[in-house]
Amino acid sequence: MPGALLTDLYELNMAASYLRRGLTGDATFSLYVRTLPPTRGFLVAAGLEACLDFLESLRFDDDELRWLGDVAGYDDTTLDAFAALRFTGDVWAVPEGRVIFAGEPLLEVTAPLPEAQLVETLLLNQITTQTMLASKAARCRLAARGTTIVDFAFRRTHGVDAAMACARAGAMVGFDATSNVEAARRWSLPAAGTMAHSYIEAFPTELDAFRAFAEDFPDRSTFLVDTYDTLTGVRRAIEVIREAGLSDRAAIRLDSGDLGALAVAARSILDDAGLRRVRIFASGGLDELAIDDLLSGGAPIDAFGVGTLAGVSADAPFLDTVYKLVSYAGRPVLKRSTEKETLPGAKQVFRSPDATGDLVARRAEDPPSGWQPLLQPVMASGTPLDHDAGLENARARFERDVATLPESARRLRDPRPPPIRVSPALQRLTDEVRGSL
Amino acid sequence: MPGALLTDLYELNMAASYLRRGLTGDATFSLYVRTLPPTRGFLVAAGLEACLDFLESLRFDDDELRWLGDVAGYDDTTLDAFAALRFTGDVWAVPEGRVIFAGEPLLEVTAPLPEAQLVETLLLNQITTQTMLASKAARCRLAARGTTIVDFAFRRTHGVDAAMACARAGAMVGFDATSNVEAARRWSLPAAGTMAHSYIEAFPTELDAFRAFAEDFPDRSTFLVDTYDTLTGVRRAIEVIREAGLSDRAAIRLDSGDLGALAVAARSILDDAGLRRVRIFASGGLDELAIDDLLSGGAPIDAFGVGTLAGVSADAPFLDTVYKLVSYAGRPVLKRSTEKETLPGAKQVFRSPDATGDLVARRAEDPPSGWQPLLQPVMASGTPLDHDAGLENARARFERDVATLPESARRLRDPRPPPIRVSPALQRLTDEVRGSL
Repeated sequence: MPGALLTDLYELNMAASYLRRGLTGDATFSLYVRTLPPTRGFLVAAGLEACLDFLESLRFDDDELRWLGDVAGYDDTTLDAFAALRFTGDVWAVPEGRVIFAGEPLLEVTAPLPEAQLVETLLLNQITTQTMLASKAARCRLAARGTTIVDFAFRRTHGVDAAMACARAGAMVGFDATSNVEAARRWSLPAAGTMAHSYIEAFPTELDAFRAFAEDFPDRSTFLVDTYDTLTGVRRAIEVIREAGLSDRAAIRLDSGDLGALAVAARSILDDAGLRRVRIFASGGLDELAIDDLLSGGAPIDAFGVGTLAGVSADAPFLDTVYKLVSYAGRPVLKRSTEKETLPGAKQVFRSPDATGDLVARRAEDPPSGWQPLLQPVMASGTPLDHDAGLENARARFERDVATLPESARRLRDPRPPPIRVSPALQRLTDEVRGSL
Repeated sequence: MPGALLTDLYELNMAASYLRRGLTGDATFSLYVRTLPPTRGFLVAAGLEACLDFLESLRFDDDELRWLGDVAGYDDTTLDAFAALRFTGDVWAVPEGRVIFAGEPLLEVTAPLPEAQLVETLLLNQITTQTMLASKAARCRLAARGTTIVDFAFRRTHGVDAAMACARAGAMVGFDATSNVEAARRWSLPAAGTMAHSYIEAFPTELDAFRAFAEDFPDRSTFLVDTYDTLTGVRRAIEVIREAGLSDRAAIRLDSGDLGALAVAARSILDDAGLRRVRIFASGGLDELAIDDLLSGGAPIDAFGVGTLAGVSADAPFLDTVYKLVSYAGRPVLKRSTEKETLPGAKQVFRSPDATGDLVARRAEDPPSGWQPLLQPVMASGTPLDHDAGLENARARFERDVATLPESARRLRDPRPPPIRVSPALQRLTDEVRGSL
């Protein structure tokens, strides 16, 4: 992650003003989602690792400082202060992979005000993107039930970062593989993929193409059958599967048309040919609702590739995330704009033992007996703390949380998040601060 | 742009198979949008420069080759071929900034089949992202009419790449500035931004905050007035504007509530105070329709900040882009899947003199008299060609094209693209190839 210019200009202006005025007391900012999109019953926390990497390496390099002076017009005193700036604060956060809801801090930063302000833009950017993608992927994973599900989104994600985040988010919520080679390398994920229509078209006939691929990649033989006529394609695949002796490892892929009806017809042809172990892979414009409809309708599909609709979270392509100052120099603060009031002070979230409701509380409160705190310290004085990071741990947390998630929040259609309450102590503080304005 | 693993696994598999089999004849792939989102009457071509940079630097480094052998399981012959692989092909493309429609190639690659195949994923990713963002930004620009418009999207774009692409796309279609500091530095764009609510809250009172900012940044004094009570905030801003003598350069920013009504009230208060030159800046959940409604309703707003809804192209967060093989080794090809038939062969797009309709034709056809070809050669044998690249040129092309765009395509609500026809010669070729299948 490159440098400290990955921010909005106003963060620099504010940081400069704070530095000049000695407004360097500790500020706490709380990053949370104000309201869930209507098609989400829960979110999956993600993006923390990228945030910690950014915070740990935050600095202005010489080229950046020169630009800030020569072009952006900051004075020498400010440039000196920027040059010395590092992130020296503390971070509490919900670990990646945990299920979380609106109004619950995903991350809280406590740091000298200029530092805490400057990092707003990138923290919001990373947490929003990755939490959005993980939450969408989680719905796809639930829809796919026990079948295989693979990330195919790279080609239409919003840039390369988003493609990487999408592959990682999928892995976090139990996707089986990704088509994204660089992501597979970076995070040691299984890579998946076989052939495109262009491969078929590059050969004189479909049969020639299938034969060539079976010879070159006998262990990756998923035959794309819809380039010309889908069921004719299935029969040609059968011919090659038999010739090459691939009946125990081959698959066919359907990528257009009525996937449910074609899967039934293809399964029947394959079974009649004695190829019961040849799997059916479906792709092409799928999202969690389409997968759910296919499986609910009894389509004999063994694996799904999900692409664009998951990779851009098409039904909810952003989250209503904010990064709000909740305390400065020991003084809890809140913002009282219309319908956007914040809760003051550093916070904790407690989850009930049966996971049917969460409590947003003050950071230092004791939990009700048996309730579990969600936020953990993950960075102290600018140094990352051990917090069970990594994709394996995140995936284990997701699996545990989703297993206890109420059905009303889990369901794909008309989901409802569980109730989120505010602790009496936090409510009292809020009333006090509001009264003092 | 890093290396050749920014691709889907199937591209590597296909490339490996082609290399092994000597299927290295020239292939032409055509990248285009199949259908426009219903809320788009036109698109703005963007992403070409990133594609050319990628193609020019395409290679597998040693670490990548090691991973491809050790983990992905490619054999030594294939690894040697990958190690030697460079992009040696030709590219024709629609220059950035031009208005374009569905069914028209944005870019065509002609290269030895393995090379042309391998680059599919990244070309699609970049053209889709940047064209989508530029097209959305163009609608915002049109909605804003003569007012100032600024990109505020960084915090909720899908990652850092997307934030950079968004700022660049905005500049291409006439945005006045961006809040994204790194983008401003990279492309020499005006940067804009002043203060957040947290700045106000960090001071004992709103008035203290305004005074401090006016002192520190007299030339960037846009006072955010909605932290507590908006019209009270306006009055406090007036006090500071007078004290500091900023009446010729200050502004106030409205970021919540009924922006139209608040702008009218704020204008009246400012005018009554004799501050007719103090500008009103509006932000907060704006998109092109909201801007249009505000200006149509007479809201006295001088400048708009557009953020998330533009930065993720929320109403159309992807384009239906494809990259289709249209010719291999001199043989035109097409794919005949249900509803997804392609047009064979290398192409050109001709625009009528009055811009009321385009003609998709064979590459070598002569245009009808007075019609202009949209695709230009931009790379030959892997070397970029001079093609009036750069943001200034792109912006000039956009301004020219949008000025002649029919009102039915330009309008924000229920837009209709102009008719796109297929030339008789291209239709004959299509019929011939279809008949030969």
